[in-house]
Amino acid sequence: MKTIHIGLLGFGTVGAGVARILLENADLLRARTGIDLRLKHVADLDLTTDRGVALADGVLINDSQAVVTDPQIDIIVEMIGGQTIAATLIEAAIANGKHVVTANKALLASQGNRLMAMARQRGVDLAYEASVGGCMPIIKTIRESLVGNRISAMTGILNGTCNYILTRITNEGSEFAPVLADAQAQGYAEADPTLDIEGIDTAHKLAILTALAFGMRINLDDIYVEGITRITPLDIAMAEQFGYRIKLLAIGKQSNGRVEARIHPTMIPMGNQLAKVNGTLNAVTVTGDAVDHVTLFGHGAGRMPTGSAVVGDIVDIARNIVSGSAGRIPVLGYQDDQIRDIPVMPMDDVVTHYYIRFAVLDQPGVLSVIAGVLGRHGISIRTVLQKGRHDQGAVPIVMLTHRAKEAAIKLALAEINALDVVTDPPMLIRIEDNNATD
Amino acid sequence: MKTIHIGLLGFGTVGAGVARILLENADLLRARTGIDLRLKHVADLDLTTDRGVALADGVLINDSQAVVTDPQIDIIVEMIGGQTIAATLIEAAIANGKHVVTANKALLASQGNRLMAMARQRGVDLAYEASVGGCMPIIKTIRESLVGNRISAMTGILNGTCNYILTRITNEGSEFAPVLADAQAQGYAEADPTLDIEGIDTAHKLAILTALAFGMRINLDDIYVEGITRITPLDIAMAEQFGYRIKLLAIGKQSNGRVEARIHPTMIPMGNQLAKVNGTLNAVTVTGDAVDHVTLFGHGAGRMPTGSAVVGDIVDIARNIVSGSAGRIPVLGYQDDQIRDIPVMPMDDVVTHYYIRFAVLDQPGVLSVIAGVLGRHGISIRTVLQKGRHDQGAVPIVMLTHRAKEAAIKLALAEINALDVVTDPPMLIRIEDNNATD
Repeated sequence: MKTIHIGLLGFGTVGAGVARILLENADLLRARTGIDLRLKHVADLDLTTDRGVALADGVLINDSQAVVTDPQIDIIVEMIGGQTIAATLIEAAIANGKHVVTANKALLASQGNRLMAMARQRGVDLAYEASVGGCMPIIKTIRESLVGNRISAMTGILNGTCNYILTRITNEGSEFAPVLADAQAQGYAEADPTLDIEGIDTAHKLAILTALAFGMRINLDDIYVEGITRITPLDIAMAEQFGYRIKLLAIGKQSNGRVEARIHPTMIPMGNQLAKVNGTLNAVTVTGDAVDHVTLFGHGAGRMPTGSAVVGDIVDIARNIVSGSAGRIPVLGYQDDQIRDIPVMPMDDVVTHYYIRFAVLDQPGVLSVIAGVLGRHGISIRTVLQKGRHDQGAVPIVMLTHRAKEAAIKLALAEINALDVVTDPPMLIRIEDNNATD
Repeated sequence: MKTIHIGLLGFGTVGAGVARILLENADLLRARTGIDLRLKHVADLDLTTDRGVALADGVLINDSQAVVTDPQIDIIVEMIGGQTIAATLIEAAIANGKHVVTANKALLASQGNRLMAMARQRGVDLAYEASVGGCMPIIKTIRESLVGNRISAMTGILNGTCNYILTRITNEGSEFAPVLADAQAQGYAEADPTLDIEGIDTAHKLAILTALAFGMRINLDDIYVEGITRITPLDIAMAEQFGYRIKLLAIGKQSNGRVEARIHPTMIPMGNQLAKVNGTLNAVTVTGDAVDHVTLFGHGAGRMPTGSAVVGDIVDIARNIVSGSAGRIPVLGYQDDQIRDIPVMPMDDVVTHYYIRFAVLDQPGVLSVIAGVLGRHGISIRTVLQKGRHDQGAVPIVMLTHRAKEAAIKLALAEINALDVVTDPPMLIRIEDNNATD
């Protein structure tokens, strides 16, 4: 039986999960692959904390440099995170002819083009299934299963923290801030939750998915990103009245040589599979010309689910090594010379449906003034809901629009916001509803 | 650019879908794979019907034997169906050293062990992603993505016809027979619907999945199969009252060296992802020790979705050919010498929760007699619902049980059925509810 030696960098949450699967399911992995996957070294600065994984003596060391240069090691598994040391170690591993597995979405989103080019040139595999959607096999599905499909759209719930918070606001009618605080107390949100709640983590993942699906170079900078911090229970309740749920969606679309790539709170029909994804779960729907829709669901994070995706990558590479087929599938799913710089559509050019909530003084004629401004900007209204709340002075007017251009919406809202009768900045939430009339 | 020659057997619905994807998305496939996938021949007895796919002159021929022996052809795609000619042609293709792609679940469920052994011995790949769940990449997910997981359970909705019929009964409250007739009229059910509505097609798929997931030889014969023909709107309405939906589920479980493999109408909690799968859609949830649950959704049939899965297989094999790695992944996901004959648990030994509906005369004391019989067989009742319908003489009594053994349930029901006060044979529907108290 062929032996493949693995070096694991980082013995944190996911690193420990990977080690645990490799050790506890070693017999199963051998029965399936016919390969002995041997965890030769785990490198971490912390040599003492008990991670609940029994490594043999001498496996855990604190010298990651020694791991990436160990001539016996075939595959380096980078589970350190961050964009400095991790990048340096991956570069060193590639330079040393080692295959690399990583779950580091932030690194790939910002430096992936360079690292992937290095791997290609050196003839080694760089695998990253665990970087998007935890245990959901979304990378493999796009790159292999849907290879015959022209992919037109992807919509995903890719951040468990945001989905957990939105689910709780939906179920409990609570405000954002206390739910976030509780999520932090319970370990569902980080002490510094910015990356998650501002949508940045989701953008990292979308940058990878759009590149894979559309054959473009990874482009994080042009993704529009809006987080969930402004979402209120009122908007969630209003959404429900219109048959919608609010989710933080990653949206990637391709048509006529342009790509849309945006992250924002989005209303989707209750009947949509993604509307039913609650708590920390992730899901993604891919739309292709042959399959129509395929949807995957699963845990998007966590020690064991993410570890499972990493082990899947390790096995893929080990099989390539054993069968002499490294580079069998191009890293980004397209032949190198076929990857293009596809422009991401400026947000102003995006056309979609909108939910707009205005806070206005309860005076006659206000609705007509607002509708007038929208009309002058070419925005037509699908539905209006006005609820009197005379005890507070201001009342909400909620409108759903027909399809409109983001630029027109922006101009109209700025104009409306300047009106004396408008007490607060309007709340804008985009809608993804293929069933909505235009 | 390397060229791989493909021979397609059968130019029916799915065959035409495969041809269409290979031709219409040829540029995309080249950009992704760097391989020219050339459809050299399509064999079908019908040379005249327009399938809406423009084949070049000379591609369509009526001699399938000539295709499987063509020395230039690398991959044979069997889209004929059935278990006679298809088997002979696949054997001939393998004997001639050709790789094979098929969507023929009936053939694999009954003759798969033999055909797979042939492919192994000849060193060719035999791929069958499209045989289960249409475009959902369930084979690849189990065999590759979840390779590090000990899989404990799979539950799937794997037959679109049954799910369509059950969805309509649920939504409309109609009886089975008229819904089936309408499904036939609309093309959602075959003229002879037996394979679908009796659960046989689902059993073919489960036979493949259990083998893959648990490392056992394909065993169709020992799968328990019960179709949906006895399901009534009354049972569906009752299920709803208890928070359940009725789906035809394929259930595969593994514990303590034994496997459960059964197909039957099943009540599942409304909150379960599978409960929300409506119409002709398919879905499957896989439970593994690392991932917890992963669920896939998509079109389980149809020209283009199934064609997409076939093209995914063609590309996998083409990549193996180009990189010299045929047989890179074992056909059934385990090394040949690791595949065992795992016994399938007899249905009598299955332990689960049950829904039982009795039709009884509306007399005092009936409930106590029935409960007494159940109690004597060690079956304890979780909930009882009795609704008086005095206009009809007989009234339904519905019970949900705690966990009970199938053998005990059978004996108890036989005894109860013999009671004078019982007017019709009891209706038994199994429940899969991990949240139910024992």
